[in-house]
Order: sequence, then structure tokens, then C-alpha cells
Amino acid sequence: MAEKLLQVIPLGGLGEFGMNCLALRYGDDIVVIDAGMMFPDAELLGVDIVTPDFTYLEQNRDKVRGLILTHGHEDHIGAVPFLLSEIDVPVYGSEFTLALVERRLEEHEMAEQVRLHRVKPGEKVTLGPFEIEFIHVTHSIVQALALAIRTPLGVVIHTGDFKIDPTPTDNELFDLHTLAEYGRRGVLLLLSDSTNVDRPGYTPSERAVLPRFEEIFNRAQRRIVITCFSSSVHRIQQILDIAHASGRKVAFLGRSMLSCTEIAHSLGLLKIPDNLLLRPQDIMSAPPHRVVVVVSGTQGEPMSAMSRVAVDNHKHLRLERGDVVVHSARIIPGNEKAIGRMMNHVARRGAEVVAGQMNPPVHVSGHASQEELKLLLNLVRPRYFVPIHGEYWQMSKHAALAAHLADYGLEDTFVLETGQTLLIDEDGARRGESVPVGRVCIDSGSIDEVVEDMVIRDRRHLSEDGFLIPIIAIDKHTGRVEGPPEIVTRGFVSPEERADLLAAARDVVIRTIESSTSEERSDWGVIQEKIRADLKRFLNKQTQRRPLVLPVILEV
Amino acid sequence: MAEKLLQVIPLGGLGEFGMNCLALRYGDDIVVIDAGMMFPDAELLGVDIVTPDFTYLEQNRDKVRGLILTHGHEDHIGAVPFLLSEIDVPVYGSEFTLALVERRLEEHEMAEQVRLHRVKPGEKVTLGPFEIEFIHVTHSIVQALALAIRTPLGVVIHTGDFKIDPTPTDNELFDLHTLAEYGRRGVLLLLSDSTNVDRPGYTPSERAVLPRFEEIFNRAQRRIVITCFSSSVHRIQQILDIAHASGRKVAFLGRSMLSCTEIAHSLGLLKIPDNLLLRPQDIMSAPPHRVVVVVSGTQGEPMSAMSRVAVDNHKHLRLERGDVVVHSARIIPGNEKAIGRMMNHVARRGAEVVAGQMNPPVHVSGHASQEELKLLLNLVRPRYFVPIHGEYWQMSKHAALAAHLADYGLEDTFVLETGQTLLIDEDGARRGESVPVGRVCIDSGSIDEVVEDMVIRDRRHLSEDGFLIPIIAIDKHTGRVEGPPEIVTRGFVSPEERADLLAAARDVVIRTIESSTSEERSDWGVIQEKIRADLKRFLNKQTQRRPLVLPVILEV
Repeated sequence: MAEKLLQVIPLGGLGEFGMNCLALRYGDDIVVIDAGMMFPDAELLGVDIVTPDFTYLEQNRDKVRGLILTHGHEDHIGAVPFLLSEIDVPVYGSEFTLALVERRLEEHEMAEQVRLHRVKPGEKVTLGPFEIEFIHVTHSIVQALALAIRTPLGVVIHTGDFKIDPTPTDNELFDLHTLAEYGRRGVLLLLSDSTNVDRPGYTPSERAVLPRFEEIFNRAQRRIVITCFSSSVHRIQQILDIAHASGRKVAFLGRSMLSCTEIAHSLGLLKIPDNLLLRPQDIMSAPPHRVVVVVSGTQGEPMSAMSRVAVDNHKHLRLERGDVVVHSARIIPGNEKAIGRMMNHVARRGAEVVAGQMNPPVHVSGHASQEELKLLLNLVRPRYFVPIHGEYWQMSKHAALAAHLADYGLEDTFVLETGQTLLIDEDGARRGESVPVGRVCIDSGSIDEVVEDMVIRDRRHLSEDGFLIPIIAIDKHTGRVEGPPEIVTRGFVSPEERADLLAAARDVVIRTIESSTSEERSDWGVIQEKIRADLKRFLNKQTQRRPLVLPVILEV
Repeated sequence: MAEKLLQVIPLGGLGEFGMNCLALRYGDDIVVIDAGMMFPDAELLGVDIVTPDFTYLEQNRDKVRGLILTHGHEDHIGAVPFLLSEIDVPVYGSEFTLALVERRLEEHEMAEQVRLHRVKPGEKVTLGPFEIEFIHVTHSIVQALALAIRTPLGVVIHTGDFKIDPTPTDNELFDLHTLAEYGRRGVLLLLSDSTNVDRPGYTPSERAVLPRFEEIFNRAQRRIVITCFSSSVHRIQQILDIAHASGRKVAFLGRSMLSCTEIAHSLGLLKIPDNLLLRPQDIMSAPPHRVVVVVSGTQGEPMSAMSRVAVDNHKHLRLERGDVVVHSARIIPGNEKAIGRMMNHVARRGAEVVAGQMNPPVHVSGHASQEELKLLLNLVRPRYFVPIHGEYWQMSKHAALAAHLADYGLEDTFVLETGQTLLIDEDGARRGESVPVGRVCIDSGSIDEVVEDMVIRDRRHLSEDGFLIPIIAIDKHTGRVEGPPEIVTRGFVSPEERADLLAAARDVVIRTIESSTSEERSDWGVIQEKIRADLKRFLNKQTQRRPLVLPVILEV
């Protein structure tokens, strides 16, 4: 029966935010949907990016037929170079998505050896037993796709990320009709985006920001500086249009803003009227009331263009009293303080800050709220439902939203976490065995720079209470201690101010050695352990802190 | 003329969130308003709480006449024990505020030696040249006070934290009349809360959560678990009332919840109907549909009652399928991920999570939004205005809100940051010289446990890339190196997996020593510096990481 079995294998993004990756397997054929990264929690000290653990795919590398990308956000494509450096498979996605992937691959000097296949909505691709149709959905990035995957057991719908924008700025409507047709004919399994399941009602259309931009453009007397995500082509198009209408020129600042707008422009996705653009080096010489600057760095990333502008450290833009700085992006959880600090610097330069919640909004989400999620569920009317993309509690809520579909053929809903599989055969769906998953922590963005868990654990320990290393020199011939122990400490107490404490620690070491039996002294491992235990107890009692204590015995 | 000079000296909370503290000085007399703490940013590694630097007050200890507390939140009273351990002054505040202070003082074994003076709205206290009237305001804590401080140069109004709740749950209305009367007679300076200045409109009344609680109580089939701030007496009273009306008993869980509700009850601020309370140990034996549990730990603090309940590690409450868990509190920036993780654990136990934004709301803010801030400005109509309590960009926005008052006598607005003073004399107001301020980082909550900046800097460095310590033994008679260098490293690379790298690092050390001149070798400081520089360069090139490198030379 194994050949008549469909397996759903989430490798990332279920029960955690970011690094979305999911495999579908039927017999000896696997397709992978998305390979995203996530930005690390504050606890992952010194780690720059986190990718899924692709062990399952590496173990089955000969079975993987392709990687399908729903859209170009980092949490869907950011791990593509890392996955492709392990397994060599063709990649399918929309033109814009693949252009962003290509840029990433170039950074890793991998662009040559990768097979990228551009697809359009309505197109179908066959990979082994899977026939995949690409369906246009609206989202905060252009050319986002949902997937209808025909398998021998029925159709699987994967929404990717979406909202149902009734008035998208590019008039490319959400393809309700194709989803409705699949729903009418019968869908085996729906996998749907849970990101905004806690929001009641509808997410406003991308156009909802226009009245706010109009208000700002109407009243601003000097420069307008807008920071938004560089992949928000719809947002940037609206800024270009209103700038054009109000007689302002537009300059782009920041590496990712420049490269994304260039890609979108070259693909015809961003329409830039003639003579609208201003070169960055001309910003300060143009009349201030005739300038808009669109800058990357919405999250207060320390080296981003917006952060540098805020502290007056950008060669092309100097904020002045009367400028208006607009934060037109969501705050990714964990970045509140960095963004607040950036806005404080902006305000200190005398510029006005427009940020946060307001009506009309200065930013709208790209993810569906409750009413849209229900609309999608009702259109697709699946037999089984698995919420994806969300924290566990969000996926639980999404599962509850689908309950009324029991009257329309919904047989069961499964809240799966990354690694937990679902098996579907002719008898129906059930939970399967888990596969190995996890997160891979990467330093400084290079594929070689994986950081082991143990190293991160040590960093965490060091970050809380520092370390203290007693160094004891022992004569290897006589076994006698040579001179007083040396103590090296950092991140624990100030050595100058607590010289008394360190002297006492030295005494503890000496006493531990002196009180040891000659048997113990013949085994440096035992002595080390005794010193560590005695010192830890002493230091904790004196300071309530628990530095990493690492006795070193040097035979000389 | 120095005796006819009023100085406004912010010591904390202006341009930063939390640790509010402000001094008013006239000649040789100082009053201090609030002494709050803040919870550290993630960057302040291993630090538990942060207080203002009270150096200015310590240098002028003989001039400080009293400490006045506006209300009992941690960002207004959390540093009281730390301030009082340095300067001995009487403390004035409402009954509830002082009860919370007393609890803090007991933890530090200081309750005996402190002079606490309970005050009521409408009462006046004279401290040197200052006559202070206490004015009732509405806020998310009971017995919050604004201050009208009569000085020889005019009246200063300090709002404390407030919103203008038109329908407070205890029917204690915001005292508009007294503020109006001061405004009519003329106010020299207004200091007003800027926390919610970015929110348009009005903050909903505390009563706005009632429809949501009713909805939850009406549909919940089993236990209802609500986590809220333990000092939110109004919120807790509403929970008690609706529990009583719907035939559920109420249990409190968590140390701070138990102690706060006990204080509020003993002061008559929390009205608990007979037989309503359930002991924690009886929660699991009572019928689930007859139980509400109110739990502290809204921010996902690791050891809090709510966190322990979420991971099924609390002896008195075990979550079960069908329970409803309600998060009725704001998310303090920086805690999003911890709270998300807590809610994931709750959802994994099969309980429903009610959290986030919804309408009707499950939480309302205690701070005034824009329309309320304007109402307050219009009531008080000050000659000078200084926004307080907020990030710099929020205070800038608040300053802009007051601009229309220029037609009503507002002469100037000053956006001050902590440490920047304002001077007012008979000629008017102007900026003065700055005073020394800063933050004091405290480990594990003890007054003795100040963490120096350098130690925190080291922890940050260690947290990112760990350390590497080469240890070289040198014969003090011959100056020769004894044996190969020892290398100790943690948080950098895994010593097992990168044995090659560490061996190469050892070679770098040996080569550096061998290539040194005999002059250099006679100065261990020089050798240490050379080894550090060579190793750092080598390690950075090999790994792109920058561990703390600390060569140790042991003379044996």
C-alpha cells in the first residue's frame, strides 16, 4: 500500500514564525514548497540567520523532483541557497520571485549552476506524480502564487501567503474563480496561511494607505522620507504615483531598495514616469519641497540606510527641521526597541515622525484576516485542513475557524508542528511518524558558518554572567603548584572594583588543591572538577552570579 | 538672583521608556517626583533591573525635602528602595501606592527605617517652598494622582500617568474641576504623560473590556484562566463581579497576584463577595465550569505562575482541552516572543487562547490618547509645556499637539531628555546646563549588585562570538617558553569539530613569540598585545568571527 500514500512533511514554519518549508511525498517522489529563513530570536546570540534543518531532504535527495516557491519574501526563499548547496533540484517560481532568488544565489556565487524555471499563473508543471497549477493571489509582494497540486489521491491546495485584496493597486485580482472551481470539483487537503488569524474582519486593501500618503504629501513643506520594505512593489508604486502627481522627484536609498526597485522596473512591475527619479547624490541639492526619498531599513537594522540617515551618517541625505519621516511597514516582533531608537534620532534632528497605528493607515498587512480566511475555506471546501505559517496558537485558532465546514465535507483538521507528518491514503488522513527537523544557525550569512547548539548555549551562559578561569601551573616532575594561581575573568565583575573577590577566589583554589589527597592530585581531571565545584559555590554565594568556571591546569 | 530660580531636572523617563524620576529645585530645596525602574533591553545581558543614576540627588542630599509618588506602577516606584538606601527622605503617596512600596521595602529589609506619609486627593503638603496638592486621575491602577505644585514663581502641574476615563469602574471620576480651576487661575508649567501620543482619538474606558469578558463567560464550557497585571485592581474587580454573576468561583495564582489582591482587599479597594474565593489547592477539584483563575505573569516571565501553568508545571492548575486562557494585558515591547511561546504551550494543551486586538477589546490601555491629551492641555492652558514619559519621538509629537495653545498664553514648549534641565525665573523659561544622569544596571534585584558598563560590554562581546584564551607558560629565569601554548575557548567554535582551527591558532601564537625580538620578549605586555593582534587577525580571516582574545602569560 505504500505506493498509494501521500505524505505531508512540514520542515519549517508550522508552530514557529518564519523559515517556511514543506515537502509533499508520494511514493518515491518529493516536491518541496518554499525554503525560507528566519531572523533569530534574541536568545540565539551572535547568530545572523536561521534556516530549517534539511536532513530529511538530504537523506532523500534522489527523490526530490523540484523546489516550488510561492513568492519572494525572505521567510519563503531565504534558505534557497542553503538548500541548493545540498541538493541539486530545479526551482519553479514567478519571474519576480526568481529574480530575487537569483540575487541571493549571486551573493553565494551559485547563480551559474542552478536551474530556475519561470512560471505564470494558470500554467501547469508536472513533477513525477504531481501536477502543479499556479494560481495568482494578492499579497504584499507582487507575483505571489497559490498552488493546486494534483496527486493520485486528490488535489492539495497550498495558499502560500495571501490576503484577498478586492482592489489591488495593479488591478491583478485574487483568482477566486480557479479556487472556486477546484472547490466545486473537490479538494483533498487545504494548507492555508495562519499569520493574521487573530485579526477580526478584513485586512484593508493595499490602496488604504493612499489617503494617508495624500495627507502627508499635501501638508509637507519640505522633504518626505519614507521607509518601507524594498520588496513592497505595490507600496513603492503608490509612492511614485503620488510623487509624480504632486511634483516631487523620487530618490531611492539603500542597497536592497536600489536592487529591488531595479529588478521590479526591469520586469515591468514598477512603472516609473520619465524624469521622476532623482539620483541619491542630488537629494540635498534639489529643492526640499520637491523631494521624496524611499529608504530601506524599516526594522532599525544597525547598518541599514534608514538607521544611518537617522544618526546623520549617510552621505546622501541629511535630515533637517521640517522634514517628515514616514515608517510604512510592520514592526517585526523583537524589533520594537531598535525602531523606537531610530525614530528618536529622527525626532532629535527636528523631523516629524509618522509611525504606528492611525486611520487612514500608513501601513496595511499583506495577510488575510478572519473573514478572508473563512472565505477561502468556504471557496475551497476541503476534505482535510492543515493550517500553516503561524505560531501554534494561531494555527489552533485557524483550525477552529474551519469547524463549520463539517457540514460541507470537512472530515478532519490537523494542527501539525514542524516535523510532524500527515499521511493520506484511500482510507483517509492520519498522523504519521515525525521526521528529523530543527533549525540551523548561521553566522555572518555564509553557508560554511553553521553555529553549533553547544556554542550558542555557551554564549548564552557567557552573556548572563561571563566567565572566570583560574590557571594553575604545576610542575610535571614534582607535581607541585608553581606560584599563585592566575585568574582571568570577563563579563562577571569588574576586576578593578572587586579585586578583593578575585583574591578570595584565588585562596579558594589554593585551599582546594592543598586539601586534596595525593591520589586526587595525581589526576588533574579530578582536581579541575573539585576546583570548579568549590569556586562555583563560593562565587555564587558571594555574588548570586554563576559565571562559567573553567579551571586550567598547566603542566610545566 | 539664584534664589528666584525654579529648576526642572529630569533624572529618568524623558526620551526613554520607564524609570521615571524628576526633580524640582528652588534655591536650596528639592522635591523628587517618582523613582521608577525599567526592565532592561535585551542588550543589557544578564541585567535584571535598571534604575536611574541618582548622583545628582546624592550630591544634593541635604536639600532633598521629599519623594512624591504619583502611583504604584514599577516604572514610578520600582527604584524607591535604591533611592532611599542613598538618601533618607520622607515619602508621600496614596495608600495603595505606599502599600506597594512597603512590600518592596520589606523585600530589601528597609521597611523599618522609612517614613511613609499617606495622602488623599485634595490634600496639600508643604515641603520647603513647594506646596503640593494631590489631584485624583484615572489610570490603569487605583489611586493615581496628578500633582499641582505651587512654587514662588507659579504653579507646576505634573499629570503622572493618566487617561481621562469618563466611566471608571469604581466611579471615581477624573478630577477635571480642580485642573480647570488651576488652569483658570494660571499655570506656569505643565508636565504631561506622552505614552500614547501616537494613538488617535480616545482611549476606551476600562469598562470597555466588560462585553468581551461577558462573551467569554457566556460561552466557556470549562475553566476560564485570565492573566492580567496584578496591580490592575479595576480589571480584577470586573472579573470578580462577572464571575459572581455567572456562578463561578475565583482563585488567584502567582505570588504578586496573591499579594496585590490581598493589599487591595485589605484597603477596601477590591470588593470580594462572600464565598467567591477558591483556594489555589481546590482549583482542580471544583467543577471546571464553575472556576475562574486569575494568574500573574502576563509577559511570559520564565518563573511566573502563568508560564508554569502553560508548560504544565504548576501544582495547582493543569490546563485541559476546552479551557479558555485570556491574555488581558498589554505586551511590553521586547516580550512578544516570550508571550507567543507561552501561548503556544497553552494551545498545545488544547486550551483556547484569547489574545491580541479584537473588538470588543480584551485589554484597554491606561494612558491618554491624542484627544484626551489635547483636552488636558486645554484645561490647564500652561505658559510652558514639557512633555514627559515617552520616547523622544513621542515627546516631540506631544509638543506639536500643544501648538494651538499659543493663542491661549502658551509661550514655549521644551522637549527635554533625561539630564537636560529647564530654568524658569521671572524673565521666563530657558534651557539650563545638564546634570549627570545615566542608568544603573542591577543583577538579581539586590542593591549591592550593580553591574558596571564594562562588564555588560564584555558580556555583549562574549554573547556574540565567545572567547579564546591562549595561555603561555614562560620560565621566569630563562625567559623561554615552556611547552606548547594551551588554548581555552567557549562560545566561539566547537573545540571538537574545529580542532584543526585551534591547532593552527596555537601555531600562530608560537610563530608570534618566535618572531619577536629579544627586546619585545623582555616585556610581556608587548608580547601579549602582539599575540592578541595576530590571533584576532587570523581568527577573523578563518571564521569571520571576532571572539574576545585574552592572551595569558604565566611566569613559572
